[in-house]
Amino acid sequence: MTTHLEVALGNRSYRIHIGAGLLGEPQLIRPHLAGNQVLVVSNETVAPLYLESLRGSLADLEVFEHILPDGEAYKTLESLNGIFDTLLRAPCDRQATIVALGGGVVGDMAGFAAACYQRGIAYIQVPTTLLAQVDSSVGGKTAVNHPLGKNMIGAFHQPRCVIADTDVLATLPDRELAAGLAEVIKYGLIRDLEFLAWLESSLDALLARDSAALAHAIEVSCRNKAAVVAADEREAGQRALLNLGHSFGHAIETGMGYGRWLHGEAVAAGMCMAADLSRRMGRIAQSDVDRVTALLTRAGLPVAAPAELNPERLRELMSVDKKVRAGRLHLVLLNHLGDACISDQVPEPLILETLTACRSPA
Amino acid sequence: MTTHLEVALGNRSYRIHIGAGLLGEPQLIRPHLAGNQVLVVSNETVAPLYLESLRGSLADLEVFEHILPDGEAYKTLESLNGIFDTLLRAPCDRQATIVALGGGVVGDMAGFAAACYQRGIAYIQVPTTLLAQVDSSVGGKTAVNHPLGKNMIGAFHQPRCVIADTDVLATLPDRELAAGLAEVIKYGLIRDLEFLAWLESSLDALLARDSAALAHAIEVSCRNKAAVVAADEREAGQRALLNLGHSFGHAIETGMGYGRWLHGEAVAAGMCMAADLSRRMGRIAQSDVDRVTALLTRAGLPVAAPAELNPERLRELMSVDKKVRAGRLHLVLLNHLGDACISDQVPEPLILETLTACRSPA
Repeated sequence: MTTHLEVALGNRSYRIHIGAGLLGEPQLIRPHLAGNQVLVVSNETVAPLYLESLRGSLADLEVFEHILPDGEAYKTLESLNGIFDTLLRAPCDRQATIVALGGGVVGDMAGFAAACYQRGIAYIQVPTTLLAQVDSSVGGKTAVNHPLGKNMIGAFHQPRCVIADTDVLATLPDRELAAGLAEVIKYGLIRDLEFLAWLESSLDALLARDSAALAHAIEVSCRNKAAVVAADEREAGQRALLNLGHSFGHAIETGMGYGRWLHGEAVAAGMCMAADLSRRMGRIAQSDVDRVTALLTRAGLPVAAPAELNPERLRELMSVDKKVRAGRLHLVLLNHLGDACISDQVPEPLILETLTACRSPA
Repeated sequence: MTTHLEVALGNRSYRIHIGAGLLGEPQLIRPHLAGNQVLVVSNETVAPLYLESLRGSLADLEVFEHILPDGEAYKTLESLNGIFDTLLRAPCDRQATIVALGGGVVGDMAGFAAACYQRGIAYIQVPTTLLAQVDSSVGGKTAVNHPLGKNMIGAFHQPRCVIADTDVLATLPDRELAAGLAEVIKYGLIRDLEFLAWLESSLDALLARDSAALAHAIEVSCRNKAAVVAADEREAGQRALLNLGHSFGHAIETGMGYGRWLHGEAVAAGMCMAADLSRRMGRIAQSDVDRVTALLTRAGLPVAAPAELNPERLRELMSVDKKVRAGRLHLVLLNHLGDACISDQVPEPLILETLTACRSPA
């Protein structure tokens, strides 16, 4: 089963191809190359598995490689500079295309490198994790981390196309599959109750890596994200709904040190915290919170902040999040399951109640 | 005398204010602040002279400062990271505005920091050198250097407004005034023969820092640049004409090590080389080349490459320039004085003849 969808962004529109075996289909990539130079950015885990197959689709081109160490810990300005070193040593010109072969870290860094190299060159995403396929492949957000905050340095830079090959998920560790499912579940929670119900009934198939189930989950997730992004490319309003659980999640990731919690794991815990806070605000019922927690638990995801981080520290970390505006925290809450909204009117005591209640026992 | 001009770029349009004493006029800056946080980026030479006066225009706001060491040698990714440190330690949110108070290096770095911080915040330019007032204040180009190439890492990011105060030129060293005049003369050479003639007759007034003459030179230069940029924001075509002398000039700057030659000095030598090459291509007469050389010499600018760099080395450095496309050098040539064009058809032997002829004696 192969399908595709269009992310509609005017002259920056692009297509996401979804299905099995797409990595070996050169006709998907080649029309989107800006010239005959290609830099493939990958990491030391993914490259041995899939770089050869991708190279098959890039025959006759001048192909360079930049292999990053694996992990969020390397999503830094310093590693980014390594990509610039490779581009300049090649040397790659303005018509070069960067192809990101890897998960979110590779995509974010390769995309940001493409955004900045000579003030912007073309790039193509070949996401190899479920998380990257459903999240970073739509929206054009690229970034690196800073010791004082996640994704604080970056750019909006749209890819020319995205190739989401479900075959590559076969080698994905269970923990990363689950982390991807956290974001998939998020789309159900914020704007698609029907999809949430489908996920509840299809979770076992997804965990068993059933190809058709995965393709459907990826497609519906991307469609939801694309609809939001098309309406709000620069995150002025509605796009912020995609950040359900992220203010809490980013604080967890920063507090634990990058790389100890996967992004999806932190978002899963963060979504439970957002659900808990929504209940405290009187918006949803405890049964709704339980439904969220049950699904995430079945997916093997954490549903509370780690014991190591006390509520005060988490609160402090939330203040450096990008969702802060004029000193006020903007939080994504649930009006109902399948319907999210943003509020800058959440009383501080309720935030601290949630941070206290949603903490794993020591 | 106070004047202004509009850089027309749709919803990214902005105004350049030109005149004496503008730094002390808060009403020019304040409407363009995105929120009440301001980070002033300046350098250790300019800050003691003008930061206090700028601060007067920013009363009642939350103002932070980041003072860079002075010089092109600090236009690096590492120094850029220092600006991010300051922004995050503040912490500044997405509604913060960066104000660049300084020359081209400060503007390029502050602008690039604004382009990348949280994927883009507002910035305002207060250029304090003639070069920055006539060059970097129009066009939205921001960048840092890489050891392997100048301005290789950057972004297009338009300021909210530009304040070009001619009073600040009073403290500009003679050598930097001359470097700014190189770019001013460039506008005459590429598209404004009348302005070139005015410059020939007004050069003494400009060198004497006559306020009205400077304001006129800045205004006409910015108008010329704005017309080119409005037609071609992302440098697909006509904008490249602004690079007259830059392929040669960048090679000189890179070869000498950043900071030893001022950008304007390298461009002056580069423009003489472009004129020489245009003559070798049969486009202009030797008398035209002499006219270019005479004006630049009167302004106190170099008119040949330094003896230290041999032609082969310069040629090699020109190949990593951004103006290379699919391996071919794109050079800006003169059809006539006041009329430039781009060619990727320059025979290699002629380039080497120019590099050999336009070299200072050892």
